[in-house]
Amino acid sequence: MVQDLVIGIDIGGQTTKCGIVDARGTVLSQTVIRSDNHTDVKDFIAELAEALNHIIAEAKAEGQIRGIGVGAPNGNYYTGTIEGAVNLVWGGTKTIPFAKMLSEQMNGIPVSLTNDANAAAMGEMTYGAARGMKNFIMITLGTGVGSGIVIDGNVVYGHDGFAGELGHTCAVRHNGRQCNCGKTGCLEAYASAMGVARTAREWLEMSDEPSVLRSLDKITSKDVYEAAKEGDKLALKIFDFTGRILGESFADFIAFSAPEAIVLFGGLARAKEFLTEPIQKAMDDNVLSLWKGKVKLVFSQLKESDAAILGASALAWEL
Amino acid sequence: MVQDLVIGIDIGGQTTKCGIVDARGTVLSQTVIRSDNHTDVKDFIAELAEALNHIIAEAKAEGQIRGIGVGAPNGNYYTGTIEGAVNLVWGGTKTIPFAKMLSEQMNGIPVSLTNDANAAAMGEMTYGAARGMKNFIMITLGTGVGSGIVIDGNVVYGHDGFAGELGHTCAVRHNGRQCNCGKTGCLEAYASAMGVARTAREWLEMSDEPSVLRSLDKITSKDVYEAAKEGDKLALKIFDFTGRILGESFADFIAFSAPEAIVLFGGLARAKEFLTEPIQKAMDDNVLSLWKGKVKLVFSQLKESDAAILGASALAWEL
Repeated sequence: MVQDLVIGIDIGGQTTKCGIVDARGTVLSQTVIRSDNHTDVKDFIAELAEALNHIIAEAKAEGQIRGIGVGAPNGNYYTGTIEGAVNLVWGGTKTIPFAKMLSEQMNGIPVSLTNDANAAAMGEMTYGAARGMKNFIMITLGTGVGSGIVIDGNVVYGHDGFAGELGHTCAVRHNGRQCNCGKTGCLEAYASAMGVARTAREWLEMSDEPSVLRSLDKITSKDVYEAAKEGDKLALKIFDFTGRILGESFADFIAFSAPEAIVLFGGLARAKEFLTEPIQKAMDDNVLSLWKGKVKLVFSQLKESDAAILGASALAWEL
Repeated sequence: MVQDLVIGIDIGGQTTKCGIVDARGTVLSQTVIRSDNHTDVKDFIAELAEALNHIIAEAKAEGQIRGIGVGAPNGNYYTGTIEGAVNLVWGGTKTIPFAKMLSEQMNGIPVSLTNDANAAAMGEMTYGAARGMKNFIMITLGTGVGSGIVIDGNVVYGHDGFAGELGHTCAVRHNGRQCNCGKTGCLEAYASAMGVARTAREWLEMSDEPSVLRSLDKITSKDVYEAAKEGDKLALKIFDFTGRILGESFADFIAFSAPEAIVLFGGLARAKEFLTEPIQKAMDDNVLSLWKGKVKLVFSQLKESDAAILGASALAWEL
């Protein structure tokens, strides 16, 4: 059967996932390659193109690929470039015309590119929890905190293509934690997987409250989640704190774009049962009365293994 | 000469300004009526319509009015209603179908309505400092702090029509000042004309630093401005503080929509010579490095007496 298909590519620091997607959001064929095997982007793109041609053949999709969507750290939608992506071995401080280079390698199939959180927002709007919504804010709670803002049905890119860096708004104004971005007090320094682990380490150091976390060598956010599930009081307090910080920030985001919903996605969002209540309370305590109880807090419905590919692929339908 | 004209109406708590505007932004004829003469909105609209017919006759503009734009507190663009405008004597907690009522009274001329800060943003984009800009944030520094956000050339109204309440984002998280909205620590409680006067009173109380402000009975932001112009150290420090609070907040707004510029307007923006430097410094200290020194800080170029009318009239061109 001949049909319109797209390719979604999600580039992370370690791995790059790619898949062929149909109009209903079914991933027909997919594969994963390492992102960090080559220091020259040309070599990476050559390997990526080979992998794409392989899954195209596998899905018998030759001649049906309408476009390629790429989600990448520091991806600029307007220019199709990846700029200063220090987490990619072939990135560094360079500006790489990634969309153009990949399109050339793929016989001129058009390529659209944005950052990973914007891609996630597109995916959620096209296939996920935000279907039918025109105004929502996507927050990705992973290693860091990313965001994709949708207004009137469009992802907000701003004047320079880099809008939606809500992980780097200020959550703690004075004596805040050092963030990886160089600033202090950023939301990301508290409400990411890294931030949760850090809260655990700080609180264990500052008190002698008993906790199963004390027996661990190196604490991760997953450990805190497991401990909370066992009813560990300190772990539960850590999620209360994380949720409050998130909710306080969300209240300010609501004052900006008055969204219908805030959509949460990512590894840390799996701690839904511990985060929902403190987030909701802090949101309601900090918004203008006109929004109290009105803005939905929803968790992504996308299958996590497919979500990254679906998000990037959603971009390609706009090509 | 027969030409397309529009009417702009700016409704404030005390006065309502209205004027006839041509496509180049010239106010051909204008008048002012009291906003607080009638407790029933029907009586207010009857008086307003009479005033409008008077200026239409004065400008010989019969049959040429293409539309009417209204800027009003708590104005909802989507529904044309004024909702819960407690500062208007005929407002209160009611939801008033103002656009519909005025249109009926004016023989069916279409009426578009939004809040005053959104109207100001439209005016700035159509006739002022933001001409040619597609992405900017308008901040009105008056009695309160209002905002109008423009993304891709459109004012952001959000899901419910009330987006852009940046005066009520959190500037001081803990032990912040009580704001008129019921919350604490809002930007408006610090960076409005009221906020500046309050800072002055607090600081005079807390220290015995000499200042010409000590001799005054009731301090206004204008007094602080006059004192700063005379080189009064405390007054200068008040503007440094106000500017810093504004700049810190602007840094977070930039992370949201990556605007080309932040445009300042309103009575307090007249203190440009004292505010520019601290705002700019706090912005640069608090944005991600990719925006450092890149987002313009500009002050409105609209003639202040016409600005309110022009802003509202800009809405009517879209009808």
